[in-house]
Amino acid sequence: MSIQAVPLAKAYRLLNHGPTVLVSAQHGDSVDVMAAAWACALDFTPAKVTVVLDKSTYTRVLIEQSGQFVLQIPTRDQAAMVLGVGTQGLLEHPDKLNAHGVQLFQYDAQPLPLVQGCSAWLLCRLIPEPHNHAAHDLFIGEVVAAYADDEVFRDGHWHFESADDKWRSLHYVAGGQFYVIGDSLNVSAATA
Amino acid sequence: MSIQAVPLAKAYRLLNHGPTVLVSAQHGDSVDVMAAAWACALDFTPAKVTVVLDKSTYTRVLIEQSGQFVLQIPTRDQAAMVLGVGTQGLLEHPDKLNAHGVQLFQYDAQPLPLVQGCSAWLLCRLIPEPHNHAAHDLFIGEVVAAYADDEVFRDGHWHFESADDKWRSLHYVAGGQFYVIGDSLNVSAATA
Repeated sequence: MSIQAVPLAKAYRLLNHGPTVLVSAQHGDSVDVMAAAWACALDFTPAKVTVVLDKSTYTRVLIEQSGQFVLQIPTRDQAAMVLGVGTQGLLEHPDKLNAHGVQLFQYDAQPLPLVQGCSAWLLCRLIPEPHNHAAHDLFIGEVVAAYADDEVFRDGHWHFESADDKWRSLHYVAGGQFYVIGDSLNVSAATA
Repeated sequence: MSIQAVPLAKAYRLLNHGPTVLVSAQHGDSVDVMAAAWACALDFTPAKVTVVLDKSTYTRVLIEQSGQFVLQIPTRDQAAMVLGVGTQGLLEHPDKLNAHGVQLFQYDAQPLPLVQGCSAWLLCRLIPEPHNHAAHDLFIGEVVAAYADDEVFRDGHWHFESADDKWRSLHYVAGGQFYVIGDSLNVSAATA
């Protein structure tokens, strides 16, 4: 495996197919990681994203304090961890990251906590929007750096169909049920 | 096939796995349908959604005029149509709906244009947010009714794994490439 930078103009492609993401943030010595199915691309250039963060999550507190967060794309192999960190809050379960085997790293001198084993990472600067935070739990970030593991994303495209199945992205429904991403389907503009 | 109402508290599950959607709207005699990969659930109760609508789209004009829109989940069989209506604008291609074989219907006395052959429909009332419209092309809707075809969504859950493959949802990347949704993966909370 090898982590490669993704050009910011292509960063939307990491989210375009609608995967469930992990959201991580750090303020001082406090770090939290949560799961979010409600994350979405918002713009191409500058690259922006939206993510819905419930008021009960400590990750949201850390994002409001630090003004930064990471959206990362977990893999099929990480489904139990995603459910675990998505179900437990850090305040009630201060050991939740260890309990679910979350390992963090920093990359490229960016002072943000990245989750190991994911397929891609979008490092974001919070764009403060107090009305959206308060009324809708909706947070907007500008993507300042993006990386992907070239085992499954390279040259601006996902390669789920040729990579090992363990790399497939997760798409949460409810009650512990995910779908993993499936086959590639190419439609030519000529036939469209 | 049989269209069934989806309880509004379960409507988020139609979008939770991140499918590409079709957005339709009508004002007077004008109707448009576009594709959007950037649509997302926003809240459970009342059920709300977000969708990003570029200023160049006529669908956006119709939504601003009528205050209503529909998000619907197209199927694998409809990929070429999705690419077609997502690529062409109604002002430049006034015959685009006919050209791509889009057939519309109304349901349950709701005065909104629904696209035939989709797997689910979320009928939405626009929540006016002028700042989000202008600054981010971001539109929020409250879901006022939701329906699904019970061939593939029933009892509050998708059944992609047992339905015909033609029902699988589409997850757009770029350049005419989609992924279709894949296998179901159940993680028990006990192992998480």
